[in-house]
Amino acid sequence: MSLFRKIDHVGIAVSDLEEAKALWCGKLGLEARHVETVESQGVRVAMLPVGESKIELLEPLSPETPVGKFLAKKGPGLHHVAFGVADCEAAIGHCQEEDLAMIDETPRKGALDSLIAFLHPRATQGVLTEMVERK
Amino acid sequence: MSLFRKIDHVGIAVSDLEEAKALWCGKLGLEARHVETVESQGVRVAMLPVGESKIELLEPLSPETPVGKFLAKKGPGLHHVAFGVADCEAAIGHCQEEDLAMIDETPRKGALDSLIAFLHPRATQGVLTEMVERK
Repeated sequence: MSLFRKIDHVGIAVSDLEEAKALWCGKLGLEARHVETVESQGVRVAMLPVGESKIELLEPLSPETPVGKFLAKKGPGLHHVAFGVADCEAAIGHCQEEDLAMIDETPRKGALDSLIAFLHPRATQGVLTEMVERK
Repeated sequence: MSLFRKIDHVGIAVSDLEEAKALWCGKLGLEARHVETVESQGVRVAMLPVGESKIELLEPLSPETPVGKFLAKKGPGLHHVAFGVADCEAAIGHCQEEDLAMIDETPRKGALDSLIAFLHPRATQGVLTEMVERK
């Protein structure tokens, strides 16, 4: 079994969650099954299932949050890719053995009661990469 | 059945395909099943299956190609997201009915003998979005 089992979700930074839902749901036919505020990450999140994956729309709670700063610097668009893993803590250990820099050295709670950890984009050639363990 | 059936792939712009494979395959355990040069898009492509999706590593054939210009402007990182559709031509028609600007008004050939069409990122809030029909 490989470390990454599937694409869990693709994160998209948006300036307005309602406008983003009007596009991805209203015009492109996806469905927002879940909307949640994740205070620890400073975002309001909508999850749009597609196949075995999800599109995760991320609206910042303020300009000082990581997604707020991303929007100010780069504008709306693709923000990160998240891979499903069986065991987030073991996946962090694997990455550390491979000398990959982590943002999160231990798992933390993500949306929908998941356990998550981000690799540092300097370790992944500019791609902000998340690992997600779902219960 | 919704327009988008799954995430077909996530495209990542890379400056060096061998370095990128050393990361995503060598360190993170994915496998490059297919490498192809797509002259029409000016890229060398490696496809790394993960679940029902793929990671598509894109190395430009020259700095003047779209991916070459992307790298010069934004650096390596997430480039586009592609959704699997049943019928690429019908999907273009749906998008046009929704007044979404297209890069491709008719399907063209992509990697692995697929039919593809890109929406214009100004129609999709900065997210370069591809639709893929596989035979």
